[in-house]
Amino acid sequence: MHPFWSQMAEKALPYTPGEQPQDRHYIKLNTNECPYPPTPWLNQLDFAAEDLRLYPDPTAENLRSILAAHTHLNADEVFVGNGSDEILAFTFMALMKTEISHPDISYSFYPVYARLFHLQEHIVPLRKNFELNLEDYDAFEGPVIIANPNAPTGLAVPVKQMTTFLKRHPQRLLIVDEAYVDFGAESMLSYIHQYPNLLVIQTFSKSRALAGARLGFAMGQPHLIEALERVKNSFNSYTISRFTLKAGAMAVLDEEYFQWTRKQIMETRDRLIAELRQHAIEVTDSKTNFLWLRCPQISGQELYQALREKGILVRHFNQPSIENYIRVTIGTKTEMEQFKRKLFEVVLK
Amino acid sequence: MHPFWSQMAEKALPYTPGEQPQDRHYIKLNTNECPYPPTPWLNQLDFAAEDLRLYPDPTAENLRSILAAHTHLNADEVFVGNGSDEILAFTFMALMKTEISHPDISYSFYPVYARLFHLQEHIVPLRKNFELNLEDYDAFEGPVIIANPNAPTGLAVPVKQMTTFLKRHPQRLLIVDEAYVDFGAESMLSYIHQYPNLLVIQTFSKSRALAGARLGFAMGQPHLIEALERVKNSFNSYTISRFTLKAGAMAVLDEEYFQWTRKQIMETRDRLIAELRQHAIEVTDSKTNFLWLRCPQISGQELYQALREKGILVRHFNQPSIENYIRVTIGTKTEMEQFKRKLFEVVLK
Repeated sequence: MHPFWSQMAEKALPYTPGEQPQDRHYIKLNTNECPYPPTPWLNQLDFAAEDLRLYPDPTAENLRSILAAHTHLNADEVFVGNGSDEILAFTFMALMKTEISHPDISYSFYPVYARLFHLQEHIVPLRKNFELNLEDYDAFEGPVIIANPNAPTGLAVPVKQMTTFLKRHPQRLLIVDEAYVDFGAESMLSYIHQYPNLLVIQTFSKSRALAGARLGFAMGQPHLIEALERVKNSFNSYTISRFTLKAGAMAVLDEEYFQWTRKQIMETRDRLIAELRQHAIEVTDSKTNFLWLRCPQISGQELYQALREKGILVRHFNQPSIENYIRVTIGTKTEMEQFKRKLFEVVLK
Repeated sequence: MHPFWSQMAEKALPYTPGEQPQDRHYIKLNTNECPYPPTPWLNQLDFAAEDLRLYPDPTAENLRSILAAHTHLNADEVFVGNGSDEILAFTFMALMKTEISHPDISYSFYPVYARLFHLQEHIVPLRKNFELNLEDYDAFEGPVIIANPNAPTGLAVPVKQMTTFLKRHPQRLLIVDEAYVDFGAESMLSYIHQYPNLLVIQTFSKSRALAGARLGFAMGQPHLIEALERVKNSFNSYTISRFTLKAGAMAVLDEEYFQWTRKQIMETRDRLIAELRQHAIEVTDSKTNFLWLRCPQISGQELYQALREKGILVRHFNQPSIENYIRVTIGTKTEMEQFKRKLFEVVLK
């Protein structure tokens, strides 16, 4: 039907990002953005528009050194990309051969990449109550990718389980997508030097409030980072703008503000979870900046729709086994009061 | 040797961008950046750092409409990407099947993509005096990609030759990379509606002085743009930052400044070419923002080195048949006076 399309274009099943509606004002709790602005240091950003005439540093040396110092790694153990999605795409290109294992319920971009790059997929069901157990991946070969904490379930895998997997399968790569790790889970970062088969990916889009700037980073031993660099430099030499390189550096350096932000979000979340549970709403033990919940008296689709009509936008996935859940980003305290009130109007009436 | 690397990582032959030296101050004429700043409107850019907490519009609707109006196309005939290199990469993914033809002397990223995506390459030699003639591509099948004007030769192919090719080969895609088209060549833009097998790619990095912001665009009939969108949305939903989307829109809207910039560069170039020719320096009829020249009395490598020692950075390609040439970006009038003086010191002594 499309004579000029490649097989890749033909077979692609593109990812659907959360909606960005323009029709009215919503309390936007659907794309896990940070409700607080990025570091106020950005208002003093030493940035001249005229610098934009020059290409950015393709090696992002300054930002990588700052990240290396921050994570106690060497600069050649850090890769930066145009959002963690770009890093995931490069990871699929650089570090996957013929197969990939991932949970059945997780970040929905993983199957998109697997399909784009023609990989055999081992889709491993979560256990009861959305528990991810890495023993369930023993049966397969090849790399494993998980989000930890997992999205949209919010649940974290204990570090011990990951180190056990890394030890048990030294020939298999474990990619830990830590997009949400700053909200209460333990990072695998400190195990990089111990495990040559570990790649950790993080983002500036959530805890550092820079979703609009597009920046992510990956950490692993130099042989893994080199593979990412080789693919990146065969794809696009300059993936990160000058503005974003500078904004990212500031976001890492302002540690105090970063700590304040995550603390707000975790406090708001934990208080809200306790309250919702008092009203028989089922909420997981989220270690992320979102809630994953269901209300027995109403379907997920109906709940999504009812909240939308009341001006609250949340995310609903039309996928069997999770179709009765909604994912709700943690907003400001005020926004979450509103959310709670509207939710109760819907489910407690 | 690298047990975790994919074949893609293993076989990649990454592109080498022009050097960005930190050791001393150079007059930087090696990466074809614009010597003038981007539109002064950017200094009044209505941009709040706090907006960065939100994802950008993944469809870049506003920028695409502005570009569509500017090019007299519909928004579904315009694709925007994180620099034209990213668009080229997506084009190779979305619109190439098994083979690709390109000139032997052209943008050196084309063979990098061909290798990355395992395409059979037909590398077609330029004719005498670097002439690109599309008749030489008749012998092959599959898509053709050319840079027009070509880099690093600076020479443009007449539009008639391209339309003849498009008519003669309705089953073959012609991709025209117009990175330098604003400096005096004729664009293929106005033929988009006539030819379903034409894709035109342009950039904000040269004539719009936004190399540091990372922005490029492609134009073609909707079936081609849709293929690019499908691959992009299977790779990275949000490739362009909020800041860059706004900066790009302003750069398109400030038509007067754009015209001023290109006029400066073309004037500087044409005057310089005339002067150099008076001194028996061989310079092509560049329709770009760079010169392609050789001096019979000195090798390209020596010339590059001698200029470097005098504080002038130009680009030299260590490739047979062009090894005696250097590529020199058109800078400001003052910079080019300096260049000329240093060049004469080297070759006329």
